[in-house]
Amino acid sequence: MPVGTQATVKTLTPDELYQMEAGIILSNTYHLHLRPGEDLIAQAGGLHRFMSWNRGLLTDSGGFQVFSLKGLRKIDDNGVHFNSHIDGSRHYLTPEIVMEIEQKLGADIAMCFDECSPYPCSYEEAEKAVQRTSLWAYRCKNYHSRSEQALFGIIQGSIFAELRERSAREITDLNFPGYAIGGLSVGEPKAQMYEMLDNTDKWLPFDKPRYLMGVGAPEDLVEGVKRGIDMFDCVLPTRLARHGTAFTHQGKLVVRNAGCAADFSPLDDYCDCYVCKNYSRAYIRHLIKSEEMLAPRLLSYHNVYFILKLMEKMRKSLQEGKFSSFCEKFYNKYRF
Amino acid sequence: MPVGTQATVKTLTPDELYQMEAGIILSNTYHLHLRPGEDLIAQAGGLHRFMSWNRGLLTDSGGFQVFSLKGLRKIDDNGVHFNSHIDGSRHYLTPEIVMEIEQKLGADIAMCFDECSPYPCSYEEAEKAVQRTSLWAYRCKNYHSRSEQALFGIIQGSIFAELRERSAREITDLNFPGYAIGGLSVGEPKAQMYEMLDNTDKWLPFDKPRYLMGVGAPEDLVEGVKRGIDMFDCVLPTRLARHGTAFTHQGKLVVRNAGCAADFSPLDDYCDCYVCKNYSRAYIRHLIKSEEMLAPRLLSYHNVYFILKLMEKMRKSLQEGKFSSFCEKFYNKYRF
Repeated sequence: MPVGTQATVKTLTPDELYQMEAGIILSNTYHLHLRPGEDLIAQAGGLHRFMSWNRGLLTDSGGFQVFSLKGLRKIDDNGVHFNSHIDGSRHYLTPEIVMEIEQKLGADIAMCFDECSPYPCSYEEAEKAVQRTSLWAYRCKNYHSRSEQALFGIIQGSIFAELRERSAREITDLNFPGYAIGGLSVGEPKAQMYEMLDNTDKWLPFDKPRYLMGVGAPEDLVEGVKRGIDMFDCVLPTRLARHGTAFTHQGKLVVRNAGCAADFSPLDDYCDCYVCKNYSRAYIRHLIKSEEMLAPRLLSYHNVYFILKLMEKMRKSLQEGKFSSFCEKFYNKYRF
Repeated sequence: MPVGTQATVKTLTPDELYQMEAGIILSNTYHLHLRPGEDLIAQAGGLHRFMSWNRGLLTDSGGFQVFSLKGLRKIDDNGVHFNSHIDGSRHYLTPEIVMEIEQKLGADIAMCFDECSPYPCSYEEAEKAVQRTSLWAYRCKNYHSRSEQALFGIIQGSIFAELRERSAREITDLNFPGYAIGGLSVGEPKAQMYEMLDNTDKWLPFDKPRYLMGVGAPEDLVEGVKRGIDMFDCVLPTRLARHGTAFTHQGKLVVRNAGCAADFSPLDDYCDCYVCKNYSRAYIRHLIKSEEMLAPRLLSYHNVYFILKLMEKMRKSLQEGKFSSFCEKFYNKYRF
């Protein structure tokens, strides 16, 4: 799903996301808690209304951001003290406070407050995070009261198969309407990420959505779906766009490079998005070199469209029982 | 008309400008000559095609930008030597070279290469610029050969009524299909600009478009139309947008200010644009504070829409013979 960190999918409007048939976006609880604050958003009538988005909306728990604030945070079993990355102000999050914030934001799906282990980390650290994540999931579920909002559990366990399994067992025991796999795509080799996903089927019920957090690149979406994942989120499409790079069916294209200077073909010959129908690589490169905001905007549009289309094609191929032929076609074209 | 400096109206797409019924945009010859170069644009099939814009397009002559490069340029009757503001490289422009560039860019309207006097300047300097502008207009007209492209003459004369009249006489003698008034809105008091426009009727034929270059603010458009001007261009709508400011029927609104933090009303209560129908001041202020590109984008959309709508209302009131009642209503609401 497209990621709307600050209550916007960077550079894009909701209307553009509707055009591309985006069904759900993610907003970051951590960022919105610090600025503009959940009370202002509640006053606006909730996050949907604040950002003028009328489709699916998911808020993460802030756990990932808080645990990335190395040195700025102190954690115990009750919660996390941290300093804002914006102004250094002191803040405190517990499972109950996070539920309070997410309920005020009012997304359709809220995520439990979890402890996301860094990579690399020791077995003992990862085990501690699994224990805490289970305890906090229990407290989140206990506190959460907004019945029209679905609360998803998160599975941790770093790169230890045994811990992943234990976390999955403990979290699924709490019976959430959906399950996320957290703590991957945090720097571990891709092979290790795929290995952790290989056992997904054993851990997680078939009849509930499985969501791989913070992933990812086109090939990771394919590998994730292959392993039973239903949902993904990632900043990559818009971040690459801001760095002048486009997804294509042949792999990533650095539009910023001189090779595109007089290339009047579209970003991706196989793409039928608004950008590919109207603009050339040469034009978009000119916008990048001139530091025009239209450049990241057009690239973001194309990249998000590319990812949504890729997911749509995978859904269709699964419905038609043709997923392995889809994968073959994908990898025949795609260059890493 | 909206201004597309680098072959884009900053932050906006052609589709958005079509939605707002923009009929014409301006692109800067100086900027496009330096980057990406008129040859690349000709190779792309011309500027319309390069930027995917299929309505009216006007290119200025680069004169205004070149004469702003104080210290970096050397001028004589034949042309101007200057150093690029991007990389310091040496360039030379003459009326003939400018015509060559504008013909390659292929806009619907090209402007003659003129000498734009700075403000303040002496009568003698202004007189020299008027002479040169007439000589260059003659050479431009002589050289210009692309018959489907209209070439407009430019009138100079700084703030000297006598020189304005002389320049107008000399330029109109050359019989261009349209006339621009250049060298205003360059720092002179507004009263002086209006005074220079007061005599427009005497100088310029009724049956050809009159274009006031580089203007401007909503009140200047009203005062310009009052004095017989048909066309304007200005970077103000998008520049103010990038600085967090919106045009409104009550005057300028600094959305960045704390006063908008919990203001859930639209940018302008009297505006029916996409932005005013969907977003609040509080949301847009949040985007500004979070340095999200969507902020300048939404503000640019609204500001350009505001200006185009203002022009449309003036056209309508003129057709209906109600222009003075329009002006009264405008100034009743508008605060400076």
